[in-house]
Order: sequence, then structure tokens, then C-alpha cells
Amino acid sequence: MQRALRLAEKGLFTAAPNPRVGCSIVKGGVEIGAGWHPGVGEPHAEVFALREAGTAARGATAYVNLEPCSHFGRTPPCADALVAAQVARVVVGNIDPDPRVAGRGVEKLRAAGIEVITEVLAEACDALNQGFFKRMHTGRPLVRLKIAHSLDGRTAMASGESQWITGEAARADVQYWRARSCVVLTGADTLLHDQARLKVRPDLLKRRWPDHPPLQGPKRVVVDSQLRVPPDHPFYADVSDVLVCTAADQSGPVLEALTHRGIQVISLPRRGEHLDLDELLLALGERGVNEVLVETGPRLSGAFIRQHLIDEVVLYMAPRWLGSRGLPVVDLPLDQMADSLGLQIREQRQFGSDWRIIAVPEKHSASAAAAD
Amino acid sequence: MQRALRLAEKGLFTAAPNPRVGCSIVKGGVEIGAGWHPGVGEPHAEVFALREAGTAARGATAYVNLEPCSHFGRTPPCADALVAAQVARVVVGNIDPDPRVAGRGVEKLRAAGIEVITEVLAEACDALNQGFFKRMHTGRPLVRLKIAHSLDGRTAMASGESQWITGEAARADVQYWRARSCVVLTGADTLLHDQARLKVRPDLLKRRWPDHPPLQGPKRVVVDSQLRVPPDHPFYADVSDVLVCTAADQSGPVLEALTHRGIQVISLPRRGEHLDLDELLLALGERGVNEVLVETGPRLSGAFIRQHLIDEVVLYMAPRWLGSRGLPVVDLPLDQMADSLGLQIREQRQFGSDWRIIAVPEKHSASAAAAD
Repeated sequence: MQRALRLAEKGLFTAAPNPRVGCSIVKGGVEIGAGWHPGVGEPHAEVFALREAGTAARGATAYVNLEPCSHFGRTPPCADALVAAQVARVVVGNIDPDPRVAGRGVEKLRAAGIEVITEVLAEACDALNQGFFKRMHTGRPLVRLKIAHSLDGRTAMASGESQWITGEAARADVQYWRARSCVVLTGADTLLHDQARLKVRPDLLKRRWPDHPPLQGPKRVVVDSQLRVPPDHPFYADVSDVLVCTAADQSGPVLEALTHRGIQVISLPRRGEHLDLDELLLALGERGVNEVLVETGPRLSGAFIRQHLIDEVVLYMAPRWLGSRGLPVVDLPLDQMADSLGLQIREQRQFGSDWRIIAVPEKHSASAAAAD
Repeated sequence: MQRALRLAEKGLFTAAPNPRVGCSIVKGGVEIGAGWHPGVGEPHAEVFALREAGTAARGATAYVNLEPCSHFGRTPPCADALVAAQVARVVVGNIDPDPRVAGRGVEKLRAAGIEVITEVLAEACDALNQGFFKRMHTGRPLVRLKIAHSLDGRTAMASGESQWITGEAARADVQYWRARSCVVLTGADTLLHDQARLKVRPDLLKRRWPDHPPLQGPKRVVVDSQLRVPPDHPFYADVSDVLVCTAADQSGPVLEALTHRGIQVISLPRRGEHLDLDELLLALGERGVNEVLVETGPRLSGAFIRQHLIDEVVLYMAPRWLGSRGLPVVDLPLDQMADSLGLQIREQRQFGSDWRIIAVPEKHSASAAAAD
């Protein structure tokens, strides 16, 4: 299954909106077929693996991190292909939450007399497709918040003076998270404050992961309820991968200029000072978005956090004190200790002289645990 | 040498103002004598080890983390004892920076025809006695700042509402740092704000280190320039281990009450809004203090940091966001990014759900590196 997962990771940057799936076919301790799903319109992992195995697949064991599909989609059902190839055994990581599959793939295999073992390395398989699973279950993508701050929780001096406070290794790592996301999301403030384009920088990504799999590049989404970002902003230099989310009541020359340039615009209801962020997530989910990376300023980050919409935090901590006048990383005006937000730290890792902390907000993990 | 270091650690909580020293005597691959220095007035590590080895010491190798002494202090010179025992070889960690020794111990051994190897595991040996070495070199103790804050660098809500934000494992670990310090130092604000006594809590220390060596307990020092802490504060319940640092111009009933109760008071010059903290460190150094643990509020912590008097930071980070209105851990009003203070993280380790970060302020480590 480790092998199947490593194969699946070859689709890390391209499989979406589909899940990342790898398949390894083994006979007599030797791999006779391997495949992974490269992305929409391409064959599934099992198909590639069975092709390679050929008639030798008869009596073999297939390892696949996600339940083989049972329905006719863009491709014929993989469960049927495994039956036809007469494999003896199928070892499955996760059951596919897609309502068109949801256990029917396994049933089909078992009905054909194939031994099926499920939930093997389920946690690791789950982690790889967490966004896809969340979308299937809730209609919303996984939301990952990237923040970077000093040891004392600041991003800039009170004067507004700021600069990269993290080093190159940490900045290269950010490219990895961008690359695996379907959407990189930011706010108007961030774009107005600096000339951010939020593209994946392949040169930096290479430094982080020299042999990384093919890259597709995420959509870049800006939340701009009042359409304050001018259409000639560098963010809009490439319109092919841009999506603008604005308030339903917006109209005027900026909107016209954007639509004229062929930029996709989504209109959303307001909620308080921001757009309704949950509606935004539903809209992205409808568009097949599995993973969102939020890279934005304190106000929008704070809004996501306060509404408990963040599933995971990727925090880069620079070993530096910016001082007690420094600007906070998120606008989170809490009054009571009871309102303070707990996180569970999942991993700490050094990048150059900085540290990356991966954490999960407690309310989320509590509800996730309750769902288990 | 690892063995000698482990022996030396038996004096971790009691050896000061002397250095922590362990000695292992080995012959034919077998330890025939072991000793450590328990503290002032007790024999040195070598003496215990030689006593145990007896006449078998002849031709053996002695491992000792600090150069054997060459002078008559409270005890006769250890170098002479090693010569008299006719050991064949002495393996030394650090050269003793004490001006009464400073290489003369090694010279004496070599003059007697004993093979001497120095600087073995020097870095680890150095770490164990860093406070002693700093005092020998500069007249000032090692200053360690203990802080505990949330992931976003806050200690309390804006309302002042605070509570333990770190868990029991982290609080037990604090006892370790108190226990190994000669002085735990705090400020008047901290004592007025809560009923802190800053004693070592043996029950918590046991949880952190079940088989810990004998405990002496540090002096407890309060910096109270205006003598605002009332003499009936719980901090003064036990007067035997208390030292009060106040401004030279202080007089009046509080001072009289303190001295009447037999509490030691040091008078120091002022520097700005605080006492002159460097003078304070010199005064502590004169009293044989090797390691100071600063456990205090944002103002005094900030003053130590701004004056670059901190050698090491022990930071407990609770995985929690207290929000952007929360109170900062140190009062560090910096305006320019150029003023921001870099730190080198030496170690990160999990205590319960909290993380302990040990870091060294960069200016300090830069000057330390330059001195090497």
C-alpha cells in the first residue's frame, strides 16, 4: 500500500478534482504492474496497472489506495476491469465516498469471488485525499491557512514596515502547498498592499522537491467584495487561472473590465463586513475544488478562523522577535480566555532557520473525532 | 567522558558556586572508581573516584569533564592526588577558566609524566558548566529567560484575564530549570500581580525527573526598585533564600521591616526606569551565582532583552490563539525591522501538548562565536 500511495502521489499536483490514486499489482512478491491517475479525462490507476501486467494479472494481488470505481464515468468501471483480469485479491485503502461508488466497487469485486481487504493504511490514504473526501462529504473543499510570523506572533512592524521574515527554504516550501492546492485564495487588501501574483514559482518548487511530479498550477482566487483591485494589477496579468469573488450587488466599470477580459467572476451574498465565506467555499466545492490554500492578510484570515472554516494551519515561524508593537498575523479580537482557540500541533519541522508547524484547529478536530 | 558527564550531573542542583564535575577511573575497560563533586566544602570528583579505585588507580585512565585543580583551596590540589595515585592518563573535557587553575592542572600532570588529552567532548562539557564559565570570564552569571506564551505570542487577554496557558508537563519542566539555577529572579510587578513564591515544587520536579539528584533550591531574588512588595507577601514567608534588589536611594518602613526580618537587601544604582540590570548581574556574580532564571513580567523581561543581557531563552509555546488583543509576553517596543531581534533555535521538544523551544539571542551567539 505504501507503494500504491507513492504512485498516487505522482498525481498530487494534477489529479484534482479527482482523487489521487495509485495501483500496484503484485504476483509472487514481484510488482508486475503499476499505475496512477494523472487527472481528468485520463484512465484510472487500475487501468494503467492492468495494462502493464497483461495476462499475468490473473491470480495476482492489486493494491489500490482508493476503492475501485463501479460506475461508468468518463472511463468504464475499474472494478469490472479487475474482475475481467481475474486478479485473486484486491487490497484497498479507503472506501470511495463518491456516492456513485461508496462500497459498490468492493461489492462488485466480492460478488465475482475476489478477496477484498479494506482500510489498509487507511489514515495515510485518507491524508492524501482529505480535500476530495471533505468535498464529497460536505460539498466544501479542505481549507488550509498559510501564515508566517515571528516567534512573538508578528508579521510586520507597527510602521507597516515588513519584509520576508522567513528564509528561502520556507518560501520554497510554500510553493509545494500552492502546487498541491486547487485554489490559492487571497483578499483585496493583500493584492493592494503588495504586488502578489500567488503563482507557483517552479524554480523555488524545484528546490523544495527536485523530482516533483507534473505541475498543473492552482486557480488563483481573490475575494474582493468591493472590486477594489484594479484590472491592471499584476495578479490579472494572466487571466486564464483567475477567479474573482465579489458581492452580488457589484456593478460598474471594474466588473465590466474584468468580464471583458474573460476573467471569471462569482457573485456571492455578504455576511457582515465580508462576503459570506461559507457560500464561497460551497461555490468552490461545486467547481470541483478539493484543497484551498488561503494566503492573505490579517482581516480575511481572521474571518476564516472566527467562522471555524479552517481545517489546517501551515505556520512558518521565524526565530525573531519583532516586538510588542508589531502587527499581529491574524485579526482575531477575542475578549475572553474561553474564546481562545486551541490547536493540535501535528508536526514541527525545520526549514533553514525557520520552523514549519502544521496544526489543526481544535473545534474542527473535535468535530472530526466525533464523526469517526 | 559521557560517563564523567553523567556523574557530574549528580551535582547539577548542588555544586554551585563550584562547577559540576564528574570523574571516572577506568582500567582494562572496567570502571574502578567514580565520583562527583556534591558542592561547596565537599571533596572534588577526583578525590571520590581515587578513593574508590585505591591502589588500582596506578596505570589507569581518569576521565574528568573539567581540568583537575592545581591550587590549595578548601581541598588539596586534585592534580597532585592524580600524580600521587600514579594514573597513566588523564582525559579532560574543558580547561578550567578559574584563574587559579587555567591550564596549570594539566601542566602539573604532564610534568609528572602523565599523558593528558584535553578538549574531549568539549562542547557537551561546556554546556554543563556554561554559567560557571561565563562568571569566570565576565564576572556575570548565565541569564536564562523563561517565557510561556500562545502560538500568537500572547500571555493573557486584554482584560488581564490569564490562567495557566501551558499544561502540567511544561510546568513540571520549569521546576527543572529552577532547580538547576542559583537564582530565580522576578520583579515587583509579578509578585504584586499574583501570589508567586517561585520555589521549586519537589512534587512537580519528581514528575519531570523521578530520580533527580539532591536538590538545594535556588535563591529567590526580587527586583523591587521602589520596595512596592509588602513584607507580608507570601514570597517573603521563607526569608532564608530571599534576596531583595532595590535602588540605593530607598529607605523607610518597608526596608526596615525587610532587614529586621533578616532579609538580605542589595542596593543598586538606577538606569532609566529600572535598576541597572548589568550592575545587578555583577552583584550576583560576586556572590558566586552561576545561573539565573528570569521568570517575570513583560516590562522586566523586555528590559533584560533590550539590554542584550539574556544568554538563553526557554520558551513554552501553548498551541492556542489568544487573539490579536492579547497581551504580549515581553514589552519590546521596537520601531524598525532592523531593531528586531534574531534568535537561534537550539532545540524544540514536546511537553504534553505544549512545545519547549530553547533559543539563543543572535547578538549574544554572534559575540560568543567571535570569542571562540
